[in-house]
Amino acid sequence: MERILNALVLTPEQRAAFEAAAPGCELLFMKDADITAGDLAGVTVVLGNPSVAAVQAGGGSIRWMHTRSAGADQYMPAGVLPEGAILSSSVGAYGTSVSEHMFAMLLSIMKRLPAYRDQQHQELWQRAGTACTLHGVTVLIGGAGDIGSSFAVLCKAMGARTIGIRRNVNKPAEGIDEMVGMDDLDRLLPEADVVALVFPRSPETDGLMNYDRIKLMKPDAILLNAGRGTAIDCEALARALEEGHLFGAGLDVTEPEPLPAGHPLWQQPRALITPHVAGGNSLAITADKIAAIALDNLKRYLAGDPVKNRLK
Amino acid sequence: MERILNALVLTPEQRAAFEAAAPGCELLFMKDADITAGDLAGVTVVLGNPSVAAVQAGGGSIRWMHTRSAGADQYMPAGVLPEGAILSSSVGAYGTSVSEHMFAMLLSIMKRLPAYRDQQHQELWQRAGTACTLHGVTVLIGGAGDIGSSFAVLCKAMGARTIGIRRNVNKPAEGIDEMVGMDDLDRLLPEADVVALVFPRSPETDGLMNYDRIKLMKPDAILLNAGRGTAIDCEALARALEEGHLFGAGLDVTEPEPLPAGHPLWQQPRALITPHVAGGNSLAITADKIAAIALDNLKRYLAGDPVKNRLK
Repeated sequence: MERILNALVLTPEQRAAFEAAAPGCELLFMKDADITAGDLAGVTVVLGNPSVAAVQAGGGSIRWMHTRSAGADQYMPAGVLPEGAILSSSVGAYGTSVSEHMFAMLLSIMKRLPAYRDQQHQELWQRAGTACTLHGVTVLIGGAGDIGSSFAVLCKAMGARTIGIRRNVNKPAEGIDEMVGMDDLDRLLPEADVVALVFPRSPETDGLMNYDRIKLMKPDAILLNAGRGTAIDCEALARALEEGHLFGAGLDVTEPEPLPAGHPLWQQPRALITPHVAGGNSLAITADKIAAIALDNLKRYLAGDPVKNRLK
Repeated sequence: MERILNALVLTPEQRAAFEAAAPGCELLFMKDADITAGDLAGVTVVLGNPSVAAVQAGGGSIRWMHTRSAGADQYMPAGVLPEGAILSSSVGAYGTSVSEHMFAMLLSIMKRLPAYRDQQHQELWQRAGTACTLHGVTVLIGGAGDIGSSFAVLCKAMGARTIGIRRNVNKPAEGIDEMVGMDDLDRLLPEADVVALVFPRSPETDGLMNYDRIKLMKPDAILLNAGRGTAIDCEALARALEEGHLFGAGLDVTEPEPLPAGHPLWQQPRALITPHVAGGNSLAITADKIAAIALDNLKRYLAGDPVKNRLK
C-alpha cells in the first residue's frame, strides 16, 4: 500500500481530486515547512518540497518524489533520496509567473523606474534619462522552454523580435521567431538588445555569462536572469556595470543567494534585484498548474505508467 | 509671406521635408527652451512649445501654433495667443510612449518591484508579499483615445478584459472590449482591478478621483494616472493609501507638479511616482509621429485647409 505525503497548496476541490485518484492509499496532507524526518516514516510517495535534511534523515522508504518546484537540484545528489527512487518536478507550471515577473523587471528597467523610485525617496522630480522600448529590438532568450516561450510571447506583443537558445533547436516554441543552439551564443550576444536567461541549472550554463561574454553584449543592452543564479558571474556583472557597460540588469536569482553583505550589486543603481520570487509569486494560476501536473503524475504512477518531468 | 518657427526635434530628412513643404516661406529652426519673445517677432506659425511668457510677450503676429505636446492647456487662456489664432496639438503621437510607461508602472506595482527596490538598498533578501497578474482581471481605462487604446492593447495581450470610458461611446477603439460613458464610472469603479486614467484636462475630470471615488475601488485594486494630475485628488489618495486601501498607485502626473516637499505620497511605500516623463520619454517613435503630424498640418495650413487636432 502506498503511503502518500502531499504537501502541495490545494483548494478543497483539488484535495478531493487527489483523494479520489488514490483509493486504498494512505494520504497525509502537510505543509513543506512542517515536515520532519519522523513524518516521512513509511512514506512511499512525496508530493512537495520537504527539506533535504528531512529527506536524508527519514526518507528511506520513498519510491517517488514529485516537487512543486520546476527545478529539483537539491534532491539530485546521491544519498539524498534512496537508491532507485524516482524524482520528477513541476516544470511547466511556472511559465506565467516567472515570465511576467521577468517582463515586469525588463519594462521597469527600460522606463528607468528603479531610478525614479530612488528619486521619489529624495522627493526629487527630474528626468532620469531617455527610456527604451521593445519596438523593433532583438531579445535573446536563453532557455526556450515553458518560461522562455511565455516570456517571448510577451516581448513579441510589444513589438520585439525573439531568438531562443535551446538544446533541441528543431523543437519550436510559441513566441520564438528563431531557434538556435548554445554554439550561437557568442555570435548573437553583440546583436541582442535584451539577453534574458531562464536556463535550468547545468554544467553547460554554470558561469556562462562571465566578464568576456557580458562585454560582448551591446553597451546599452539589458541583461536579465530568472533561471539559476549560477548562469551569471555576479562579480563580473558588477565590474561591467561599474565600468558603465549595459543599460541595466535585472536579477531574480544570484550566486550565491542572497549576495553577501556589501556586494557591489546591492547598491549598483543600474541593477534591480528581487529575492528569487518570480516563480513563487503566489499566483493562483501557478498553484493550479502544479496541482494539475502532480495529480496527472500520481495517476500515472499508481497505474504503473512512467511519470512525466522525470529527472531521476 | 509666412514666417515659420520650427522647434520640433527633427532628423535631417525630416527637416528637409519641412523645407520642401513650405516653398517661399521663411523658416527658422530653434529649440523650445531657447525661444525668447524677441525670436517671435513677425513669426506667423509656431511648431513647438515655446514658453507661455515668450508667447505672451512677443507672439502678437502668430496666426497658427501647433504644439509638440498632446495637451496645450497653457496656451488656451485668453491673452496668451492673439485673438483668432489657431491652436492645434500633436495628440496621437504619444500612444506608444505613454501607454508603455503606464504599463511598466502597472507591472512593476503588480510584482512589487518598488518594494524590492527599497529592500535592495538595505541588502534585504525577503519576499514582500504576493504578486498580482493581469490574467482575467478587469482594467477600466479613463480616456479611450490614442493612449488609452494603446494601453488597452497591452493589457489584453496579458489576459485582461478592458473597459474604456470616453465621451463618444459609439466610437470604438482598438483593445477596448466595452466602451462606456462617464456616467458609468461610479458603477464600474467597484468592479475594476485596475483603474488607469489618461484623460485630457477638462472641467469634467478635474478632481474626478476624490476620496469617495477612490474608496469605491476594490481594496486591492491599482490606480494609475498618466493623463493630467488634476484628475486625482492627491491628498485623498494619500489618505486612502495610509488607511490601507488599494494594492498600489502609480502616478506620472500629480497636482501640483511636483508635489510639495513633505507631501505624504513621496514616502508612501505603495505609491510609485515618476516626474511626468511618460510622454517625453524620448522614444524615437514619438518624435517621428510628432514630426509627421506637424508636417501634415503644415501642408494643410499652407493649402488653406483646416488643420487637424484643432483646440482653438
